[in-house]
Amino acid sequence: MEFPMMIIVILSMAVTAMGQSPPTAAVPGWKLSIEELRKQYSHYGVGKRLRPRVWPNNSRVAVALSFDVDNATASLARGDLGSEVLSRGMYGAIDGLPRILNMLDRQSVPASFFFPAVSALLNPEMVPLILSKKRHEIGVHGWIHENPANLNDAAEESRLLKQAVDVLTKATGKRPAGYRAPSWAMSPFTMRQVQEAGFLYDSSLMASDDAYEITIDGKPSGVIELPIERILDDYPYFGAADGSLPSPNLVDQIYRAEFDVAYREGGLFVLTMHPHITGHRSRVAWLEKLIEYMKSKPGVWFATHEEAARYVKDHSGN
Amino acid sequence: MEFPMMIIVILSMAVTAMGQSPPTAAVPGWKLSIEELRKQYSHYGVGKRLRPRVWPNNSRVAVALSFDVDNATASLARGDLGSEVLSRGMYGAIDGLPRILNMLDRQSVPASFFFPAVSALLNPEMVPLILSKKRHEIGVHGWIHENPANLNDAAEESRLLKQAVDVLTKATGKRPAGYRAPSWAMSPFTMRQVQEAGFLYDSSLMASDDAYEITIDGKPSGVIELPIERILDDYPYFGAADGSLPSPNLVDQIYRAEFDVAYREGGLFVLTMHPHITGHRSRVAWLEKLIEYMKSKPGVWFATHEEAARYVKDHSGN
Amino acid sequence: MEFPMMIIVILSMAVTAMGQSPPTAAVPGWKLSIEELRKQYSHYGVGKRLRPRVWPNNSRVAVALSFDVDNATASLARGDLGSEVLSRGMYGAIDGLPRILNMLDRQSVPASFFFPAVSALLNPEMVPLILSKKRHEIGVHGWIHENPANLNDAAEESRLLKQAVDVLTKATGKRPAGYRAPSWAMSPFTMRQVQEAGFLYDSSLMASDDAYEITIDGKPSGVIELPIERILDDYPYFGAADGSLPSPNLVDQIYRAEFDVAYREGGLFVLTMHPHITGHRSRVAWLEKLIEYMKSKPGVWFATHEEAARYVKDHSGN
Amino acid sequence: MEFPMMIIVILSMAVTAMGQSPPTAAVPGWKLSIEELRKQYSHYGVGKRLRPRVWPNNSRVAVALSFDVDNATASLARGDLGSEVLSRGMYGAIDGLPRILNMLDRQSVPASFFFPAVSALLNPEMVPLILSKKRHEIGVHGWIHENPANLNDAAEESRLLKQAVDVLTKATGKRPAGYRAPSWAMSPFTMRQVQEAGFLYDSSLMASDDAYEITIDGKPSGVIELPIERILDDYPYFGAADGSLPSPNLVDQIYRAEFDVAYREGGLFVLTMHPHITGHRSRVAWLEKLIEYMKSKPGVWFATHEEAARYVKDHSGN
Repeated sequence: MEFPMMIIVILSMAVTAMGQSPPTAAVPGWKLSIEELRKQYSHYGVGKRLRPRVWPNNSRVAVALSFDVDNATASLARGDLGSEVLSRGMYGAIDGLPRILNMLDRQSVPASFFFPAVSALLNPEMVPLILSKKRHEIGVHGWIHENPANLNDAAEESRLLKQAVDVLTKATGKRPAGYRAPSWAMSPFTMRQVQEAGFLYDSSLMASDDAYEITIDGKPSGVIELPIERILDDYPYFGAADGSLPSPNLVDQIYRAEFDVAYREGGLFVLTMHPHITGHRSRVAWLEKLIEYMKSKPGVWFATHEEAARYVKDHSGN
Repeated sequence: MEFPMMIIVILSMAVTAMGQSPPTAAVPGWKLSIEELRKQYSHYGVGKRLRPRVWPNNSRVAVALSFDVDNATASLARGDLGSEVLSRGMYGAIDGLPRILNMLDRQSVPASFFFPAVSALLNPEMVPLILSKKRHEIGVHGWIHENPANLNDAAEESRLLKQAVDVLTKATGKRPAGYRAPSWAMSPFTMRQVQEAGFLYDSSLMASDDAYEITIDGKPSGVIELPIERILDDYPYFGAADGSLPSPNLVDQIYRAEFDVAYREGGLFVLTMHPHITGHRSRVAWLEKLIEYMKSKPGVWFATHEEAARYVKDHSGN
Repeated sequence: MEFPMMIIVILSMAVTAMGQSPPTAAVPGWKLSIEELRKQYSHYGVGKRLRPRVWPNNSRVAVALSFDVDNATASLARGDLGSEVLSRGMYGAIDGLPRILNMLDRQSVPASFFFPAVSALLNPEMVPLILSKKRHEIGVHGWIHENPANLNDAAEESRLLKQAVDVLTKATGKRPAGYRAPSWAMSPFTMRQVQEAGFLYDSSLMASDDAYEITIDGKPSGVIELPIERILDDYPYFGAADGSLPSPNLVDQIYRAEFDVAYREGGLFVLTMHPHITGHRSRVAWLEKLIEYMKSKPGVWFATHEEAARYVKDHSGN
Repeated sequence: MEFPMMIIVILSMAVTAMGQSPPTAAVPGWKLSIEELRKQYSHYGVGKRLRPRVWPNNSRVAVALSFDVDNATASLARGDLGSEVLSRGMYGAIDGLPRILNMLDRQSVPASFFFPAVSALLNPEMVPLILSKKRHEIGVHGWIHENPANLNDAAEESRLLKQAVDVLTKATGKRPAGYRAPSWAMSPFTMRQVQEAGFLYDSSLMASDDAYEITIDGKPSGVIELPIERILDDYPYFGAADGSLPSPNLVDQIYRAEFDVAYREGGLFVLTMHPHITGHRSRVAWLEKLIEYMKSKPGVWFATHEEAARYVKDHSGN
């Protein structure tokens, strides 16, 4: 049976190369003890819930908008050099980001921009353009949008993270405070490296609507999680450009419905978008209407991720 | 041709490992006799239709809400340890279930919660929280959301079912009356084991809108089926978190349209949801509106699955 | 390179076994001459367009409703014995078909029911139930919903077609006049066999909105095509039960928009549905509203496929 | 490891044969230098932005409608001879194109029709029918809708392009001015060949909403890009005929939302459709309503792609 096993390995490699592959256990879950399962389940866990009683200026809700400036990096990372994906990615730099920045300017609303460092290097005009506006934040989104869970190599992952921090520190003149994992996917090593690199917060996990302190294997890490969700991500709706694209109005319905409850419950509202996806004409128009809707309510605090993380750190009683 | 056959086997194993694999016949259907086909078709069949002339309190329709508390178990069962799926599953315990329970409380409506036993073990606060409310029911949803049809091993399946019943009996202080197959998928052995374990009812098949007595190979089993449907499941709409997520309003339209006819025809309305899927802000808000809509009609009986099963058993004339 | 070629063959066989495989040319199209391409393109072609100047009773539009009574046969044909697909298919016989027939009765509208013969044999109560109503038609939809293009065996295909015609002739007391290919897929042999079996019409091709005489390799076949379309099929919307299911209202919008133009242009409107798909509560309710809408317009002729085929044959001038 | 490598190659070949395969780099992006990545990223780049201060007749926006007349060619190119795909493609010639042309006539609006040459040869009545109307343009869309990125053979690609230009020049009596890559996919050689063939413009890339001069490896090519987008393509919505088909109303919403911003910003609005997709009853009706909406605004210039390309070339100041 040695030869067929080789084929399985080859097939898995092929499958891995084609898509994303999460960390995978060698045996199915029903063959493990509860202790083993608990260890797997809580490698990255939920520590202290960080929900302030009130937001700055007596606000009821905190709105943190973010844009992952991937452009073509995810394609380049995979080695996919198709003219469609590369030119669609390039749109993020050429038209998407400027249109978004103009709109945020009109609305006087800050946002956080997470960069794969290579994206900042391929279109070096982007970071200065963002920083020419006031209050925006720049965070780290990997080296080239490599999927950390696919690298399967702690040293390589660490090297790429250091490179990314260096490039973005140099480009912005400030060490980034926030990390977002490419593809929202972590290897077993990622969070320890994020902690050791001194990041204030991560924004890649989904275990709550509230900010929380991440635990690693049950121990507090000191790193704050600002949770994200696919519901509040433009990718599931618009990302598969050759799938069925919904109307921005429909997406607006969903985002408003989520916001309305965040407002009622008094929580944190984190929205993830991409310049090469949401930067299109109709979508920025819709996003502007959503922002106007949120601004029409009393007690909405618009903040960068860093501002939100610092606030919950200092104002969540014990 | 021996060697290529080996590759087919390997490929099938790979495909099976990646997804779900239903019980599969060795030859295509057009090579079988009608007798052989009839045997395949009616392994699990429809016996006596259990439709009471009227529901308790002269109600016109019975509404049975259920939540399959999978959280991260389906991922753990597959050995998929990705940070996204694990933290999204964890959300069911951290935020999803509490938000759902509070809403059900506000509306004074009971529900049935089907647990993979491992889910109850990984977050042991969930069962007591559910039981602290009145009238809710706890049922069995496998050991770790293993797909029974994939186990392909009657003894292993039986062992896992016993373990699950034991854990949930101990956690609740009462032997569960109801079973729902993980992935709504049964092996050829499942229903016999459910019968032998003394379950009052199963809720995993789809052959009618009305409750019915399940037949096994044409013989009455004594087990009541409370049928489910993908139309009335949150998974096809919201489950593929990286697919195209519809607006809760759209799903609300579909559920209401189904309810309206159940109400008009005087039937049973079974709705299946998941705390890690429907427990999100906008979705619980929408579910609450749906419940308010149903409560606005005269003659709607809200029941746990167990209550509905006992009622149809005792009130379906012969 | 002999060994790798074997693997390609094996892989293709595996892929074929998993899904549908249309007739495939050995070489890509850009290596063929225009003559060779023309031969491929027009194996089944469009002959005389059969569009009457007016429909019976001076009607403007002909509406031909059809239901393919597949139930579980497509699963049985594939050897897929999963409890979900089998019980969902069974629903077509248990609840779906009766609900549809009652509704058609209320509306006094005829329809055509295309049966895989095995479906009629597994639930023998269906054909008499349909025939107990007036004007409905029963046609042939394969032996067990085998995909003709996958059989790749003219003799086997012919044997299965004869069996199916025999079973349905015996069940109805009348030789069926109409054929619809399972999966709307034809082998290179199918149409010749349909012609030789003496069918009046086929309803499996899509080259026009109007009825037309099918040509085989450029020669008139005498068989009338009543064209179908995925737009007017319930399967793309509701068939993938674990995909994203749209609201019946949305589907209603599409069907009405198509009908409105058929009405304006004065054409033929063929709608294909399935009892195990459209037979559900909300969907029959929606279909009834669509029929009421069509009936509210003056000049709509509801006909079976056979009635429509006979009419266009006799009333399309030359 | 030599033998398994062979299998990987075979598997890749199989995968390639099944779908589209873009040019792929041999190593993942994180193993490349920034210089290497920049070279990959900007093989086809954005040169001078071609945005006129005002459009002809003082118009605010230019609308360029296009139809890719693929019909069945993409299926024939793949060797997919299924009766469904071939007859659905044939619909484009039989009913789709005539219905579209009649509508454009009613609205007095011009359009550009991009032909795979084989499509024009298989239904030779199409080109004269288009040319019998005034102002429409005919452009090149490959020989048989072969995917240039899949050919992986510069000489073969060049041969097919020459053949296509010759056939369409002969059919129209005029050398085509515009090129659109089949599947919007380019090989590394495509743009150089388009340049050398003397095309005025290409319409296959996506890096901006505005027209621009394409650069090849950083050097101006002289070829004008009229960018397209999946948002403004009928294929993602209606192309997968067995997927979930949205309502034309929904698509209309999206197209209008894009148009509204193009109008407000004063840009170029390029819409791509297909006679065998958009030529259906409800979709032409919807398209006509969209055109009426655009015509209801002051300052909308409807132009062929060629007219738009010539205008931006001459009126984009330097």
